[in-house]
Amino acid sequence: MLFLVKMDVAIPYDLDPAERTRLLAEEKARARQLQRDGVWVHLWRVAGQYANYSVLDVASPDELHEVLWSLPLFPFMTIEVTALARHPSAI
Amino acid sequence: MLFLVKMDVAIPYDLDPAERTRLLAEEKARARQLQRDGVWVHLWRVAGQYANYSVLDVASPDELHEVLWSLPLFPFMTIEVTALARHPSAI
Amino acid sequence: MLFLVKMDVAIPYDLDPAERTRLLAEEKARARQLQRDGVWVHLWRVAGQYANYSVLDVASPDELHEVLWSLPLFPFMTIEVTALARHPSAI
Amino acid sequence: MLFLVKMDVAIPYDLDPAERTRLLAEEKARARQLQRDGVWVHLWRVAGQYANYSVLDVASPDELHEVLWSLPLFPFMTIEVTALARHPSAI
Amino acid sequence: MLFLVKMDVAIPYDLDPAERTRLLAEEKARARQLQRDGVWVHLWRVAGQYANYSVLDVASPDELHEVLWSLPLFPFMTIEVTALARHPSAI
Amino acid sequence: MLFLVKMDVAIPYDLDPAERTRLLAEEKARARQLQRDGVWVHLWRVAGQYANYSVLDVASPDELHEVLWSLPLFPFMTIEVTALARHPSAI
Amino acid sequence: MLFLVKMDVAIPYDLDPAERTRLLAEEKARARQLQRDGVWVHLWRVAGQYANYSVLDVASPDELHEVLWSLPLFPFMTIEVTALARHPSAI
Amino acid sequence: MLFLVKMDVAIPYDLDPAERTRLLAEEKARARQLQRDGVWVHLWRVAGQYANYSVLDVASPDELHEVLWSLPLFPFMTIEVTALARHPSAI
Amino acid sequence: MLFLVKMDVAIPYDLDPAERTRLLAEEKARARQLQRDGVWVHLWRVAGQYANYSVLDVASPDELHEVLWSLPLFPFMTIEVTALARHPSAI
Amino acid sequence: MLFLVKMDVAIPYDLDPAERTRLLAEEKARARQLQRDGVWVHLWRVAGQYANYSVLDVASPDELHEVLWSLPLFPFMTIEVTALARHPSAI
Repeated sequence: MLFLVKMDVAIPYDLDPAERTRLLAEEKARARQLQRDGVWVHLWRVAGQYANYSVLDVASPDELHEVLWSLPLFPFMTIEVTALARHPSAI
Repeated sequence: MLFLVKMDVAIPYDLDPAERTRLLAEEKARARQLQRDGVWVHLWRVAGQYANYSVLDVASPDELHEVLWSLPLFPFMTIEVTALARHPSAI
Repeated sequence: MLFLVKMDVAIPYDLDPAERTRLLAEEKARARQLQRDGVWVHLWRVAGQYANYSVLDVASPDELHEVLWSLPLFPFMTIEVTALARHPSAI
Repeated sequence: MLFLVKMDVAIPYDLDPAERTRLLAEEKARARQLQRDGVWVHLWRVAGQYANYSVLDVASPDELHEVLWSLPLFPFMTIEVTALARHPSAI
Repeated sequence: MLFLVKMDVAIPYDLDPAERTRLLAEEKARARQLQRDGVWVHLWRVAGQYANYSVLDVASPDELHEVLWSLPLFPFMTIEVTALARHPSAI
Repeated sequence: MLFLVKMDVAIPYDLDPAERTRLLAEEKARARQLQRDGVWVHLWRVAGQYANYSVLDVASPDELHEVLWSLPLFPFMTIEVTALARHPSAI
Repeated sequence: MLFLVKMDVAIPYDLDPAERTRLLAEEKARARQLQRDGVWVHLWRVAGQYANYSVLDVASPDELHEVLWSLPLFPFMTIEVTALARHPSAI
Repeated sequence: MLFLVKMDVAIPYDLDPAERTRLLAEEKARARQLQRDGVWVHLWRVAGQYANYSVLDVASPDELHEVLWSLPLFPFMTIEVTALARHPSAI
Repeated sequence: MLFLVKMDVAIPYDLDPAERTRLLAEEKARARQLQRDGVWVHLWRVAGQYANYSVLDVASPDELHEVLWSLPLFPFMTIEVTALARHPSAI
Repeated sequence: MLFLVKMDVAIPYDLDPAERTRLLAEEKARARQLQRDGVWVHLWRVAGQYANYSVLDVASPDELHEVLWSLPLFPFMTIEVTALARHPSAI
C-alpha cells in the first residue's frame, strides 16, 4: 500500500560537521537501498526547500513507521503522512 | 491495520428535514453494522461538538476509503485520517 | 517537468443532479485522456477525503495552468501546486 | 471517563545521552504500569512521527493532569487533550 | 468537574426572523436555568464578538455534551472545550 | 473589569536548576498574593499542559499589563488576553 | 482606556441592494457620531481590503462591546479586539 | 512606490451568467488600462489557481486602495498587500 | 503615509545582561527620538505581551524599512506591517 | 519560466560575527551575479522584515532549486516557491 510522505529536514547549524557528514552519507545510502528494495518508490526534492515528497510502498503502517523511524536523519525531520487509495479515474 | 479518523459533521441548516432524518437513520444503521463487522472498532463523540473520533480496523487504505466514502453523511463531513502503528511501550 | 498537485473537491450539495452527473463524467474522461497523454502521470485518492494527490509532467507552468484550469471540476476545487526537482539521492 | 490525548515528543538533540536513556526507560516503565492499572487504555504510535495518540480512563481532569504531568518525558512533550463522550451510535 | 467552553455564534442572516426570535428566547431561558442549576457557573461575553467564554460544572464529559448539544443555538455554534484541573497555586 | 488570560509556560530545559526553583517559588507566592488581593479571581490548570486559564479583575488594561509583566515567569510565558463583558443572559 | 479593533466586513453579495444601501448609510452616520463623541478615536482603512483598524476610547469592555454590537454592519463583520496599555517609551 | 498584491478570486457558482460575463470583461479592460497607465506593473497568474500575484506602482496607500477597491471583481476577491522596499543587493 | 506596525519582541533569555541593558536603553532613546521627529506617531503596549502596536508616518515604504531595520531590537523582533489608507467615514 | 520566491532570513544571533560578515558579503555577490545573469529578475525587500520577494527566471524547477540551494544564506532561510503562469489580461 502507498503512503505519501513529506519530510522537512532541519539540521541544527551547530551540529558537529563530521557528524553531519556521516549522517548525510548514511541517509543517502539508506534512501538508495530502500529504493532498490522497492519500498521508496518515488523521491522528489521540493524545489527551493530542504524537503522531499516521497511515496513509499509498504505492507502496513507498522512497516512504514519502522522505515521512517530508522532513517538516520529522522531526529531532524518533520514528517507528514497521507494514506493513499486507488483513484476511480486512474488508468 | 488501524486508522484514527476524526469526522466533523456540518449539515446545511436548510436541508430538507425529511432528507435529514433519512440520512441520520441510515448513518446510524451503517455505523452500527460496521461496528458489528469489526471494522469500526471505536466510536467516541467529541464532547461539545458534532464530531467523532473513531478507530477503524481495515485491510488497506483502499478499504478505509471505501468505508468512509460510502457513509451517508460523507458529503457533509470533514475527515482527517491518521495511520496508527504499534507503540513499543504498548502491552 | 514535474509538479505535485493536491486537489480538494467541494461540489455544492444543491447543484443540479444532472449537472453534477455531467461534470463528473467529463472530469473522469478528461483525467483519463491526460493520463493516456502522459501528462497526468500519477493520480492517487487521499484516503477518507474527496481529494487527490497527483503528479503532472508538463513543459512549463503555463501548460500546468492550462491543464488544471480546463478541468471540468476546476471551479469546485481548491488546488495547491508544488514544483518538484530531482533529488540527489534518487536512483 | 475517557480522554483522547495526543503527545508529540521533541527531545533536544544535545541532551546528555545517559539522561536520555534514563528518561526513555522510565517513560516506558511508567507507560506500562499505567496500562496495567487500566488508566492508559489505548496507546498507538502515529506512523512516521515521534508521537502517540492515547486514550486514558480517569476519574476526573485532575487525575488526567496528574498522570500526564508526572510522565518522565512531560517536559519534552506537546500535549493536546480532547474530552470524549458516549456516541449515540456506539454499540 | 470544570470545563472552559468557548461558543462562537453564527446565525445565518437569512434565517426566518420569527425562528430567530424564538431561538434566542429559548437559548436565554435555557442558559438561565442552567445557571440556576449550578451547571453553567460562569458566562462572559467576549467583548466585540458574538461569542462567550463559559465555565460549566458537570459530572462527566457525557453530561457536558448533553448540556451543550441541547442548547437551542447549538446548530449555529462553533464550540471549543478545555478540561480544567486544580492549579497548585490556587487558594 | 475582567480579562480572560491564557498563560503557556515554556521554561528552557537547561535553565539553572536553582534559578528555576527560585522562579517557581516566587511565581507561586506572587500568584497567591494576587488572589488574596482580589485581582487574580480565577486560576485553573489546563489539563495536560503547563498552562493556565485565569480571570483577572483589574481597573484598566494598564493595571492588567503591570500585573502580568511583573510575574516572575513572564519571560517564559506566551500570553493571550481576551476582554470580557457582561453577558445579557448571565444572572 | 484604548482598544485596537480590526473589523473585516463581508456583506453577502445577494443582500437586497436597498437594504445594503441603508445599512451603509447608517454605519457611516454611526461611525461619524462615535468619532464626534470621542469614542472612535482612530479609523483607518486597511489598504486593499474591506476592513479597518480602529482605536476606541471607552470606559470599560462593557462599553466597548455595546458600541461594536450596535454597529449596523456588526452582523457582517469579523472583529478582533486587542487591549492596549501605555508603553514605557511613549512620550 | 511598489506593493506586491495577491488576489484570490471566488465568484459564487450561482452568479447570473450574464453578470459574470460582464464582470470579467470589465475586469480585463480595467486591468489592461491600469497596465497601460504604468500602475499595474506586473501581473502573473498563480499556476493552478484562480489567483494572481501583481506589483502595483502607486503614489500612496490611498491610491493603492482606490485602484483595488474599484476593480469590478473586488467584491469577490481576497486580497493581501505587502509593501516593498528597495533591496540593498538589487542592481 | 501611515503604516500600522506590530512588533513582537523575543530577546534570548541567555543574552549577556549588559548587552540587554544597553540594547533596551538604545531602543528607548531611538523610539523617543522618532516620536519627537513625528515619524512614530502612536506607540501602544499590547496588554499582557512583550509587544507593541505602532503607527508610523513616513514618506515611503523605503523610509519605513530604514526606520524599522535600524531599531536596536530589530534582530529580536517579529514585525508585521499593514498599509493604511484614509477611511471614507473618518472625519 | 518564472517563479515567485519569498525568502525569510533568520541568522542565529550567536553566529560568529566574522562568519556572518563573510556570509552576507558572499550572498550579496551571488545575488548580484544572478541578477546580471538574468536569472534573478526581481529582488524586493519586504518592508519591515528581514525577508525578500523575488522573481527568478529559470529553465526548470531543477535549475530553480540549484540556484536557491547554492545561496550562502540558504541554511538560514525559510523559502516559499510559487510557480507563475502568463495571465490572460497581461499586456
